Amino acid sequence: MEDPLDALRSLMASHSPPLHALVVPSEDNHQSEYVSARDKRRAFVSGFTGSAGLALITMNEALLWTDGRYFLQATQQLTDRWKLMRIGEDPSVEIWIADNLPSDAIVGIDPWCVSVETAQRWEQAFLKKKQKLFQLSSNLVDEVWKDRPSADILPVTIHPLKFSGRTVAEKLKDLRKKLKVEKANAIIVTALDEVAWLYNVRGNDVAYNPVVHAYAVVTSESAFFYVDKRKISSEVFCFMDENGIEIREYSTVDSDVSLLASGRLKYSSDTRDSQSDVQKAGKVDSHVTGNVDNTVEEKKHNMIWIDPSSCSLALYSKLMPDRVFMQQSPLALAKAIKNPTELDGLRMAHIRDGAAVVQFLVWLDNQMQEIYGASGYFYESEGTHKRKHLDSMKLTEVSVSDKLEGFRAKQENFKGLSFPTISSVGPNAAVIHYSPESNTCAELDANSIYLFDSGAQYLDGTTDITRTVHLGKPSSHEKSCFTAVLQGHIALDTAKFPNGTTGHALDILARIPLWKDGLDYRHGTGHGIGSYLNVHEGPHLISFKPHARNVPLQASMTVTDEPGYYEDGNFGIRLENVLIVKEASTKFNFGEKGYLAFEHITWAPYQKKLMDLTLLMPEEIEWVNSYHAECRKVLAPYLNEQEMEWLKKATEPIHGSA
Amino acid sequence: MEDPLDALRSLMASHSPPLHALVVPSEDNHQSEYVSARDKRRAFVSGFTGSAGLALITMNEALLWTDGRYFLQATQQLTDRWKLMRIGEDPSVEIWIADNLPSDAIVGIDPWCVSVETAQRWEQAFLKKKQKLFQLSSNLVDEVWKDRPSADILPVTIHPLKFSGRTVAEKLKDLRKKLKVEKANAIIVTALDEVAWLYNVRGNDVAYNPVVHAYAVVTSESAFFYVDKRKISSEVFCFMDENGIEIREYSTVDSDVSLLASGRLKYSSDTRDSQSDVQKAGKVDSHVTGNVDNTVEEKKHNMIWIDPSSCSLALYSKLMPDRVFMQQSPLALAKAIKNPTELDGLRMAHIRDGAAVVQFLVWLDNQMQEIYGASGYFYESEGTHKRKHLDSMKLTEVSVSDKLEGFRAKQENFKGLSFPTISSVGPNAAVIHYSPESNTCAELDANSIYLFDSGAQYLDGTTDITRTVHLGKPSSHEKSCFTAVLQGHIALDTAKFPNGTTGHALDILARIPLWKDGLDYRHGTGHGIGSYLNVHEGPHLISFKPHARNVPLQASMTVTDEPGYYEDGNFGIRLENVLIVKEASTKFNFGEKGYLAFEHITWAPYQKKLMDLTLLMPEEIEWVNSYHAECRKVLAPYLNEQEMEWLKKATEPIHGSA
Repeated sequence: MEDPLDALRSLMASHSPPLHALVVPSEDNHQSEYVSARDKRRAFVSGFTGSAGLALITMNEALLWTDGRYFLQATQQLTDRWKLMRIGEDPSVEIWIADNLPSDAIVGIDPWCVSVETAQRWEQAFLKKKQKLFQLSSNLVDEVWKDRPSADILPVTIHPLKFSGRTVAEKLKDLRKKLKVEKANAIIVTALDEVAWLYNVRGNDVAYNPVVHAYAVVTSESAFFYVDKRKISSEVFCFMDENGIEIREYSTVDSDVSLLASGRLKYSSDTRDSQSDVQKAGKVDSHVTGNVDNTVEEKKHNMIWIDPSSCSLALYSKLMPDRVFMQQSPLALAKAIKNPTELDGLRMAHIRDGAAVVQFLVWLDNQMQEIYGASGYFYESEGTHKRKHLDSMKLTEVSVSDKLEGFRAKQENFKGLSFPTISSVGPNAAVIHYSPESNTCAELDANSIYLFDSGAQYLDGTTDITRTVHLGKPSSHEKSCFTAVLQGHIALDTAKFPNGTTGHALDILARIPLWKDGLDYRHGTGHGIGSYLNVHEGPHLISFKPHARNVPLQASMTVTDEPGYYEDGNFGIRLENVLIVKEASTKFNFGEKGYLAFEHITWAPYQKKLMDLTLLMPEEIEWVNSYHAECRKVLAPYLNEQEMEWLKKATEPIHGSA
Repeated sequence: MEDPLDALRSLMASHSPPLHALVVPSEDNHQSEYVSARDKRRAFVSGFTGSAGLALITMNEALLWTDGRYFLQATQQLTDRWKLMRIGEDPSVEIWIADNLPSDAIVGIDPWCVSVETAQRWEQAFLKKKQKLFQLSSNLVDEVWKDRPSADILPVTIHPLKFSGRTVAEKLKDLRKKLKVEKANAIIVTALDEVAWLYNVRGNDVAYNPVVHAYAVVTSESAFFYVDKRKISSEVFCFMDENGIEIREYSTVDSDVSLLASGRLKYSSDTRDSQSDVQKAGKVDSHVTGNVDNTVEEKKHNMIWIDPSSCSLALYSKLMPDRVFMQQSPLALAKAIKNPTELDGLRMAHIRDGAAVVQFLVWLDNQMQEIYGASGYFYESEGTHKRKHLDSMKLTEVSVSDKLEGFRAKQENFKGLSFPTISSVGPNAAVIHYSPESNTCAELDANSIYLFDSGAQYLDGTTDITRTVHLGKPSSHEKSCFTAVLQGHIALDTAKFPNGTTGHALDILARIPLWKDGLDYRHGTGHGIGSYLNVHEGPHLISFKPHARNVPLQASMTVTDEPGYYEDGNFGIRLENVLIVKEASTKFNFGEKGYLAFEHITWAPYQKKLMDLTLLMPEEIEWVNSYHAECRKVLAPYLNEQEMEWLKKATEPIHGSA
């Protein structure tokens, strides 16, 4: 296959004006973290398949920026035509361009695939040398991508009230209140999970993320849903109609945003009439313009709210800058603070998910002993290392993760995985976001650590759990590292903190036990998680990264607790639970701020064999024992007798050395 | 006495143009934290004597902004003509002005008493309503301050190499290297401690801070010292001359900065000739201008470096904005990273200082038992509460702090206190920066907590220590609070962290044990400390405040570790040691960053009676015992037999309840 680099460089050279550089970001038209197969342009051009990264192609260089989770994977996947740029260590893409490309250089970008925020930051950096960010009228990658996957037409479903916990009418009312406060009369909702959350719908347009390729526009009086109408059943049509939401073709968002900008976007009286909406909007408009009340008050409330992190440069360009109110979408926080129905759903989904994980561990323990002669989950001896040379029986990273998916699939409300399972043996576990492929993946090994980070989409909640196990004899180094990770995991879990505290401040708690030994990990400590939505959601996170500074944690948010340690070429360790932020019971309430704490809702044992009990403090031992006792209790109804026997053994109390 | 508010308002009204508001900051011409008596203008106008605060006077309002350390004190000191504005809770002064004063309002300020940084931030906020920051040609407060203290003429001394550890020549060489890197050909050094540090001199112009009212201007070839020449002995004159530093009158800095701005500031060939320097500089200039080499390279290197946080608006106004390089002074970090001589000096000074503190505690223990029938430092019973009604024997917050000063004064190299001793009984201890006055202060009390936060200036180092004791029977609540503060103090002390970690990230470690009970404190956790210089010095600090985000801790910095807990109306607790940042010995070195840890250099026991041993973890008990054992060892050479007996008892090992 021809390297797309060459084809792209030809297009860049023949473009008018000729491009000095082409930026190929990871994101789709909605700045999504996970994108559909046909939107994986950056992976197509660079060969690097991680979820985050940005490719920059000049006439004689090709560079790929990615973050610490992917340094190792990128090194492995990029050919020598590519240079890896490490985010946090190397200059950012805009600084690189400003420093390395000539004055007046033209940098091409598909304006749909870059956020206003990013584009404006780049343009600022480009000023110095009068370089120009050029908005391409078509995506050059698509032109050279011969076998680009086609778009599937998958149905949109209603996410019922028993899972969503709040009606669309209530959500729209809340949203309009916020518009009023900010003196905005409309908002363009661009993030896919926000659209799905607001309208209580789900879809299948992006693997692992039950979202629909769609936009929402909500004004003080009307609401629009831009979606490929072929995905809409009559049931969904009625549902939207009852909620006063007009469904319009996805592709018309472009022209409708122009109408919105000039105050001419109007709700059609009968949404069931699906003729040219644009034309109709125009018609309604011409009849209304005579009545426009041009009072000063009206003008004040005439702002259009966009979220600069998810609104594309393309859509922004349709608006008048002085009429744009740029601020984080109010839906980000509204979605992050789960309602009681969502919280109960998340708790239940995590119990069933934990049962599947235990079933998997029981199965894996048996298989590893039987096929590989491993000493197993509980015993530390070297094992017999027998090896049945039946290829059909071989356990690989992919085959066992398929098995794990199978256990999950049997659980109630299962809808699929929430992200590609990270199933990794030995050195592969050091690749933080490792994604095994069936033809190249490693075989399981009784002498190596096995790390699995996985989750599922259930109708009542999204899950994300990581456990690290050893089915043979772990080294004392592996144990002491595992113990330090566990200590960080517990330190975050047990923290109490006043309202107003950010995940940026809390991040260090999970690192201190690792730092004591000079260990660390190159990723954040936690992310929000959706309610049958994206496995990563903001606006909060627990991280040393600057953007974690801004959003304090609040009661009823979800967040993961996932410290790790990765030794390139040897092994990786990560432990991850999902936590719910809750009000803490503290003896006092200094400053009348109210204090918060965490409730863990993930249930699966930590392998005791990997703990160095001499390093654990009495409180930590107590925490492990109490967590394990709770595991037994909540998982019992979901396990058979043999599984329950195994779990009892796995959760027997540990005792400190003191 | 007439309230200065009325007199100031008359001046504001008759000023041309009339002022809508007058800002009276805490700072002097050098933006110092501590200022000389004649510069305490804000305390004079408002009555609030805390070290930090800003007064804003309008025609009908008077507002005072201060931070959490002073909320309680300000409430007590301000009359009802003043409104307290709580920093962190209320809008900042510039936001308040923008929101509350009319459009086009004129806000007067003495341009010498405000930094460029602050002035520019205010001007930005004022844009919205076209308000104007007006630079007054004289300080209005001085006009109404009838009995303003006069300026003392106190001698400048040389700080010898055996204490400073680095010659002026070396420091100038380092500084000129940094100028070259930044393409600057001159720097105006405005912070008093930076001038003193750079030129290895000390003075007596500001109480508690051994600095001289002076500026330094250093160019690639010459160096100037602007100071009241009456303070300069012939020895200092020669010392400066040997180092190629020209001494000029303090008041000529104004005109000299103008000359510098136009490239006409020249070094006089014979600095011993002390005739009008300005005139001479002018003369040298006219003879040199013909030779100016106007190459492009020269122009590039023509920037003048100022530190926007300490350079006054007045001096900045003499410069051409496009020739100004505004960045933190390179001396801030150079001064903060102590050299081996300074580190050794600090260690020794802290040992002698610890001995003085122990001597004080022994004395206090005896006195409290004898005069007040207290059970004393070691015993918990209620005591007999006898009270000798001899006024001459009464112990007050001031009398005991004078005694403490006496013990320090006997130590080698003692030069004075490093800040006003905080000596506070019971509810006064809840006033974080309490400063007792002899006529109003409280008497000691066998039933109350006594907190003392104090330090001294020694030629070999500056000290700062806080201990909290109870000489009677503490309540279980006081004990559990003391224990939580101690746990935070230990958690910070024992942290290890990679290079690059800021005090902003570490701050939470000292709070987590308090937060567990819903307790907290409204101040940062630590500040840098000088080497026979200011007790507070940057650029680093350990704090939740945003400006702690920027400067990572580095090996050989000093920093305090001082968490606390304050219960308004009841008691206050604080424990403070000085730490030196050092390279840590860790088993591993993940990321090849190098890891750091702390060495504590403060030596005085923690009162065991105030610890709730059931709350301490084994590691914490071990830490206390090991710290106490070290205390005995290092203090022994400085204590007499009776004092040593007391210390042995005070440092006997504690045992956990487990």
